[in-house]
Amino acid sequence: MLRLYYAAGTCALASHIALEECGARYETVRIDFRTNDQRKPEYLAINPKGRVPALVTVRGVLTETPALLAYIAQTFPAAQLAPPAESFEFARVQAFNSYLCSTVHVAHAHRMRGYRWAADAAAIEEMQRKVPESVAECFGLIEREMFAGPWVMGEAYTICDPYLFTLAQFLEGDGVDPARFPKILAFRNRMAQRPAVKAALAQELA
Amino acid sequence: MLRLYYAAGTCALASHIALEECGARYETVRIDFRTNDQRKPEYLAINPKGRVPALVTVRGVLTETPALLAYIAQTFPAAQLAPPAESFEFARVQAFNSYLCSTVHVAHAHRMRGYRWAADAAAIEEMQRKVPESVAECFGLIEREMFAGPWVMGEAYTICDPYLFTLAQFLEGDGVDPARFPKILAFRNRMAQRPAVKAALAQELA
Repeated sequence: MLRLYYAAGTCALASHIALEECGARYETVRIDFRTNDQRKPEYLAINPKGRVPALVTVRGVLTETPALLAYIAQTFPAAQLAPPAESFEFARVQAFNSYLCSTVHVAHAHRMRGYRWAADAAAIEEMQRKVPESVAECFGLIEREMFAGPWVMGEAYTICDPYLFTLAQFLEGDGVDPARFPKILAFRNRMAQRPAVKAALAQELA
Repeated sequence: MLRLYYAAGTCALASHIALEECGARYETVRIDFRTNDQRKPEYLAINPKGRVPALVTVRGVLTETPALLAYIAQTFPAAQLAPPAESFEFARVQAFNSYLCSTVHVAHAHRMRGYRWAADAAAIEEMQRKVPESVAECFGLIEREMFAGPWVMGEAYTICDPYLFTLAQFLEGDGVDPARFPKILAFRNRMAQRPAVKAALAQELA
């Protein structure tokens, strides 16, 4: 059985939703960032990066959200969460999810994890100050250029959707008014109605 | 025919090498960051992100290195640059390349692109100061935990290799002595001998 290591309020939610969408048999293990569980030897033995998510499979451990999402989609093809693996459409799904992990999530991470990139407290504060602008720039680009609607890729719900939903959950905390992005805001509300999203959120908030 | 937009000394080199490895028919267009070509309307029409690489295909434009690499591998299967698209091994390739784009490249980017995450000059300098440490931490993790050898994934050369090679090119500039990572240093030398790597580098330096 698959085992998902997650922490509440993190990007692990995307994989959690995808597992729910697939009707996968899986269990979850909550990692508590407040007690720094992610840096403890037990967890580092599973994921030496000390981050979430990590997905334990019978073949070994997988990390990194774009990889987990594609793996989940391909392991449960009946749920049709991704285009065929060798299609141009799959490459577009990958491009979108790569943008989320390398640029959007990184812009957001400068609010809480500035210590990764500077030691000085004043510099870390300066990073926090720019988060509303850099995050809004990313979501503006998604709203204008990438989001097809009603789902990210258009009519087909894919693994791009739980990932965008997850990062869009952080908007208010990042000091960005989601009303600036009406398509993404409507999408976020649409996502929140899906049983899989409700189930994953309920587990994480329990 | 495929068309790769690249800038010299950037992560676009990874896709460039992959195209060479495949014996692909492609052309390249050089974007000059010194004259801010990447922000000009002609280029923004191709890639609204204003970044490289971008790969123009008959189906449309693709961006983001992990997506380009997987697409190139799948478009030219004879070159065997990736495991079968629905395998666990492919998920591991994706996990590695996601780590490179979301963490390793991001650590490096704080040297030259700090303005993305802070407005203040002192904060940007503070970010630069931490780059040797944060980049070395990433490469230490790759050396200890991820790199199988002789290639990233073991005996099979994959799309992880040109990407790691590309980011490993930045080590000295980032203030990191590559001798601290003997496996990666030997890998970098091994890569530099490949005809595809020589061809891509020669074109970019021409």
